[in-house]
Amino acid sequence: MARVVVDVMLKPEILDPQGQAVQRALPRLGFEGITDVRQGKRFELEVEGPVDDAALARIHQIAETFLANTVIEDFSVKVEAGEGAGATAVKAES
Amino acid sequence: MARVVVDVMLKPEILDPQGQAVQRALPRLGFEGITDVRQGKRFELEVEGPVDDAALARIHQIAETFLANTVIEDFSVKVEAGEGAGATAVKAES
Repeated sequence: MARVVVDVMLKPEILDPQGQAVQRALPRLGFEGITDVRQGKRFELEVEGPVDDAALARIHQIAETFLANTVIEDFSVKVEAGEGAGATAVKAES
Repeated sequence: MARVVVDVMLKPEILDPQGQAVQRALPRLGFEGITDVRQGKRFELEVEGPVDDAALARIHQIAETFLANTVIEDFSVKVEAGEGAGATAVKAES
């Protein structure tokens, strides 16, 4: 069982009020030195069987069609070796 | 300017209705072989100055105090080399 992570973030040119709210709150709360915050979504998909090119292409399609709104959001698909492991491959960035 | 990524996910024992909704929708939409989906949040922080141990400790504290609800959520802090680069270090997982 492999884990594939899909990160969905607003495109850089799209205003991110959630991230801005966090960024503006930090100095008030005593944390300086954070110049920008962007907030996005992270999906962890558990995939049955091997994560080959076909599976990744399918997940790429899922991400493009359902998980991200590609008009305003970018997404990236990463394969994780196992639970808690770091990313082993950055497969697609759109 | 360095980018630090904070991933916030519900703890494994906490029910994730958002992720479940995605997982149940996929077969209906023609995508088989995804056995589980968990949805979480991803914060990208732009940090002024070097990302040394002190800065990371501060970001860890921000994540623990404001970005994650540690009663029901786990978080991880990762340093990214630059825009679009992969994670270079997994610094903390709680």
